[in-house]
Amino acid sequence: MSINKSFASDNWSGVCPEVMETLTRVNAGHNPAYGELEDPVTGAAIEKFKNIFGEQIAVFFVYNGTAANVLGVSQLMRSYHAVVSAATAHLNEDECAAPEKFMGSKILEIQTEDGKIRPAQVEPFFKSFGFQHHAQPKVISISQVTEMGTVYTAEEIRVLAAFAHANGLYLHVDGARIANAVVALNTGFKSLLTDTGVDVLSFGGTKNGLMFGETVVFLKKELSKDFEYLRKQGMQLHSKMRYIAAQFDRYLTDDLWKKNALTANGMARKLAAALQLFPQLKITQEVRANGVFVLMPVELISHLQKHYFFHVWNESPAGESRRKEVRLMCSWDTTEEDIRAFAGLVKQFAQ
Amino acid sequence: MSINKSFASDNWSGVCPEVMETLTRVNAGHNPAYGELEDPVTGAAIEKFKNIFGEQIAVFFVYNGTAANVLGVSQLMRSYHAVVSAATAHLNEDECAAPEKFMGSKILEIQTEDGKIRPAQVEPFFKSFGFQHHAQPKVISISQVTEMGTVYTAEEIRVLAAFAHANGLYLHVDGARIANAVVALNTGFKSLLTDTGVDVLSFGGTKNGLMFGETVVFLKKELSKDFEYLRKQGMQLHSKMRYIAAQFDRYLTDDLWKKNALTANGMARKLAAALQLFPQLKITQEVRANGVFVLMPVELISHLQKHYFFHVWNESPAGESRRKEVRLMCSWDTTEEDIRAFAGLVKQFAQ
Amino acid sequence: MSINKSFASDNWSGVCPEVMETLTRVNAGHNPAYGELEDPVTGAAIEKFKNIFGEQIAVFFVYNGTAANVLGVSQLMRSYHAVVSAATAHLNEDECAAPEKFMGSKILEIQTEDGKIRPAQVEPFFKSFGFQHHAQPKVISISQVTEMGTVYTAEEIRVLAAFAHANGLYLHVDGARIANAVVALNTGFKSLLTDTGVDVLSFGGTKNGLMFGETVVFLKKELSKDFEYLRKQGMQLHSKMRYIAAQFDRYLTDDLWKKNALTANGMARKLAAALQLFPQLKITQEVRANGVFVLMPVELISHLQKHYFFHVWNESPAGESRRKEVRLMCSWDTTEEDIRAFAGLVKQFAQ
Amino acid sequence: MSINKSFASDNWSGVCPEVMETLTRVNAGHNPAYGELEDPVTGAAIEKFKNIFGEQIAVFFVYNGTAANVLGVSQLMRSYHAVVSAATAHLNEDECAAPEKFMGSKILEIQTEDGKIRPAQVEPFFKSFGFQHHAQPKVISISQVTEMGTVYTAEEIRVLAAFAHANGLYLHVDGARIANAVVALNTGFKSLLTDTGVDVLSFGGTKNGLMFGETVVFLKKELSKDFEYLRKQGMQLHSKMRYIAAQFDRYLTDDLWKKNALTANGMARKLAAALQLFPQLKITQEVRANGVFVLMPVELISHLQKHYFFHVWNESPAGESRRKEVRLMCSWDTTEEDIRAFAGLVKQFAQ
Repeated sequence: MSINKSFASDNWSGVCPEVMETLTRVNAGHNPAYGELEDPVTGAAIEKFKNIFGEQIAVFFVYNGTAANVLGVSQLMRSYHAVVSAATAHLNEDECAAPEKFMGSKILEIQTEDGKIRPAQVEPFFKSFGFQHHAQPKVISISQVTEMGTVYTAEEIRVLAAFAHANGLYLHVDGARIANAVVALNTGFKSLLTDTGVDVLSFGGTKNGLMFGETVVFLKKELSKDFEYLRKQGMQLHSKMRYIAAQFDRYLTDDLWKKNALTANGMARKLAAALQLFPQLKITQEVRANGVFVLMPVELISHLQKHYFFHVWNESPAGESRRKEVRLMCSWDTTEEDIRAFAGLVKQFAQ
Repeated sequence: MSINKSFASDNWSGVCPEVMETLTRVNAGHNPAYGELEDPVTGAAIEKFKNIFGEQIAVFFVYNGTAANVLGVSQLMRSYHAVVSAATAHLNEDECAAPEKFMGSKILEIQTEDGKIRPAQVEPFFKSFGFQHHAQPKVISISQVTEMGTVYTAEEIRVLAAFAHANGLYLHVDGARIANAVVALNTGFKSLLTDTGVDVLSFGGTKNGLMFGETVVFLKKELSKDFEYLRKQGMQLHSKMRYIAAQFDRYLTDDLWKKNALTANGMARKLAAALQLFPQLKITQEVRANGVFVLMPVELISHLQKHYFFHVWNESPAGESRRKEVRLMCSWDTTEEDIRAFAGLVKQFAQ
Repeated sequence: MSINKSFASDNWSGVCPEVMETLTRVNAGHNPAYGELEDPVTGAAIEKFKNIFGEQIAVFFVYNGTAANVLGVSQLMRSYHAVVSAATAHLNEDECAAPEKFMGSKILEIQTEDGKIRPAQVEPFFKSFGFQHHAQPKVISISQVTEMGTVYTAEEIRVLAAFAHANGLYLHVDGARIANAVVALNTGFKSLLTDTGVDVLSFGGTKNGLMFGETVVFLKKELSKDFEYLRKQGMQLHSKMRYIAAQFDRYLTDDLWKKNALTANGMARKLAAALQLFPQLKITQEVRANGVFVLMPVELISHLQKHYFFHVWNESPAGESRRKEVRLMCSWDTTEEDIRAFAGLVKQFAQ
Repeated sequence: MSINKSFASDNWSGVCPEVMETLTRVNAGHNPAYGELEDPVTGAAIEKFKNIFGEQIAVFFVYNGTAANVLGVSQLMRSYHAVVSAATAHLNEDECAAPEKFMGSKILEIQTEDGKIRPAQVEPFFKSFGFQHHAQPKVISISQVTEMGTVYTAEEIRVLAAFAHANGLYLHVDGARIANAVVALNTGFKSLLTDTGVDVLSFGGTKNGLMFGETVVFLKKELSKDFEYLRKQGMQLHSKMRYIAAQFDRYLTDDLWKKNALTANGMARKLAAALQLFPQLKITQEVRANGVFVLMPVELISHLQKHYFFHVWNESPAGESRRKEVRLMCSWDTTEEDIRAFAGLVKQFAQ
């Protein structure tokens, strides 16, 4: 099995050449550790974020998305508060109880079809307000792009933020694939996130061409008070900070994020287009970003997985007896040739 | 102020060229994320550790030393257990209560002259055994090199390990500068750590030429059961694992760790030799590794800090009215020229 | 509104006279604190438990049911493990995230009709075994009596215990109303709990005539190692321990627990019998213990609540537009006169 | 060995008759659980506190002193904050790491001679302010009476409170024996605690004649926001709340607290007076409250402990080769006869 150009996940891909070049370039001489003492590399990267999201933000680099989500949300709450999220949210499903451990609190989950939550689904949890036996809802966390490949519109985010604020809650966005969402919506980071009223954003890059690092962006600086201590206590303060900062600086320069995300999203559309020609397959979610969710016969899955690794997302979809739902992810480095090769293998087997 | 070649800390230096070259080399095509699915890069790096420490170990990569210490120690205990360490230990002093938060427990601190602890200093805590009102001592954690630049001999470690085990405790070693210690003692990793009975080691590299990543080495594999979940819950599982693994693989190849540590330690000795010529200065700790601790007149400190950043370690040393104790760290990239320049500045001022 | 003899909850009732008399009696002279130093009062109470549950148990007194559940379950797991329970379980619903805070972990919830869970509902969570991104299921927690007033048979418990053990899990029972369950099943504590393979039991008494205190009963003593430290760390070690111990001693003497539970259960049956005469009302769950769940017109609820406090359990039951589901709890001190008075009020309004 | 009237601890004694009588009296009919729904018993007790401490307070009942301290302090801080206390403080020494577990944070300990801390001892920790690697001092916690039997004057508390507030910290008082302190100083609760600027008080009663329960008193109501959730999450919300509330109500009526404390303190003075007649003994701490600390020959200790249980407080006092320091506690029920009997035994042995 060749693992080159798998469709397993966008974190199977490597570091894009622009970022790799930057890491090499920034690797000269000494630089203050921990982003302290006015480290110029870290300072420059933070400026880039401010240029894009607005001056009133606060920016903190951490190691990964798990931490960005857990720390960003923890900052907004105390242990008797609760977070509301989709059941499918990474925060709820895939962090081995890191949120519960660090927040000391509870995630209230919402079952969804498409990974997106609406105010009406959150509202029932508000019955707990003022009842001392229940954790008090304090944060709504959404994933943009969702774990189902779907995308919230700016208006949907604006509505959720207003709803959260009207009820004394905050809105957090898990933006592990935020660049893919911005590209899908043909908008900008500020329009989609700052202007809609989001409070805290986990700004991801690793899935879109970076080596490591994630950014917690407080879109309202006043919410970030003392966050440096929470980051340190969360074991997320990197000593050689320049190597995270420089990646994000480059990522936000010359729209590198956009170039990478456009490729990934475009390849996903092409993959979907190629696959929907096969009557045995069915695309299950609208392809907005870089993921394609497909119902696929189990024999075909077995065949393809001899050559490609990818995840089965739903082992037993409703109403399906011989098909499973798989997830195929495209990346900044996926090529048309990769699509053709994969589709060719499907075709070969289907005949 | 030029920040090139400061003596602030060994994490102000950059990535050594061999490691940087490796990162570029490993950056090709796709690779399984999270070290899963028999990721060949991660597997090869683990093999390197086994070749060096012995086959019976278990190896886990995390992001940084804070996490390696906190998770490695947490694995050995439950929340009603306690860790015993020197008061000066990084674990106790410099982690913003990360250990207390994650372990849910207490560090019992020992005051020392030189950062090293002895069994007789640990023993008084054993009065708590069986007393339900007290946290139960379960782990002794030592730093090798210590935060005072001193180094435990293999025999001292052997004695501490035997003492720990005889009393139902484990011995953890914070090896943020373990290469410097091995070089200082002119020994090997296995002789110093595996063969002396250490249970868990935080194996550092970032202070000796790596970009990011630290390794938790369980020297007895059976102690590592389920540690993958603790790592994930500790927000320390990197998705693009190959970029940590490859660094350590290279670090352990062709004795790169030794080359870098030899340079850093050697430069520290040279720096100490240069400084002890000045009667106004006094070296306070034996220079065994890459740190030099010096009593220095306050005016000289002010003068030097216009050109170099370094840390004042003790603002008010006993018996000193006009001198403070500073810490000067050498790194894998410190040169004789750097030493001469620094000493020259001292001389210039002293005259 | 008279609050005497409400049907709000069995913890609105007072302390039964036998227990009150015991508290007065044990209040003489000095007694070792914390149950230490072979405190005879605590020792005698523990003996009573052993006589009833078997010699191989370990017994620890705590303050309340929240703590008995949280500590009993915590003892069986580490923070990366997960507990599986009914969504309606007190552990999941009504502890203000105390379990998440103390365990540092996650509760995996199961939606049920009747508050009871079956192996087939637990099994899907086992897909997480060995997947480092997911908390690992380790404990199944059931409530006996459930929060819906239903009762597991001994056979159902035996099946759950065997299922748990076959998959490397433990079975915990929240027995806040365990006496009511034993009486409902006309069995004994040992047959229902020890002999069926339960691992840990929260043995409640406050809802059945005690003043304060709950007991964590490890039905397999070896599971209780070090639990005294977890209890202390959980802030649940009472200094004047004799006042908890003596209550349980008396409770287990002359079948006082049975007398109280028989009354409470019997009154619930009588209340149900009285209420089912009214066509506007509908009993929704089989009345096995001391709770009666009833669909009731909203106007009638308003009327009754002028005289009695009781909880609306379901504000919007499926298929009901003008009725809500209420919970009526009987207690050790409920009388036939109380039933008549309540039913009389219903009748008065219904006419 | 008779355990009646030991001098082991004031929690070896029973419940004073006035409180026992109250418990019996309040045990009639139903009462709202959890102090909810305007429970009249709880409401009345809270009023008593307000009458004594001032109207601007907030009052919460919990089960014990461990919890009052841990929850009261937790309320004032986040996990990256630290508490400063005497090394001898119960919070630091005797809670099996409950504070670290629940606060997720660190206690910074101060070595003292007499259990009392002064601003100059706290100040060195403020070097950590703004340094992201260190937990940030946020609460000073003192014990009044201290664990060494000493008592802070009102002026000393005022100075500490002003010092704390001037530096952005809070002052918490562990008042497990607060009645004994008030009696020792011949003052009142309001003068000693409200008027001196204390922020939060753990108001104890169990050591002075109550059965169970402790009160967290926020002397500034605004500090108590959301504390009901923290209490519940801390597993400290009692269902049959009236039985805690009624005890405190009675305790604060007709100066019962004073009567009990006067007896305990007075007996301690008498005990000290009797013991200081023996040249082999030495009282080590000024006897201000109900504890007497005595240097005692080891043979005498052995002899006395055949008849009385009491704690050796210091196994190896400085400069003593054949004496240990023991702690003798008097209680609300200690009598002159008890003193005579104990002193008689000393005399018998001494001859």
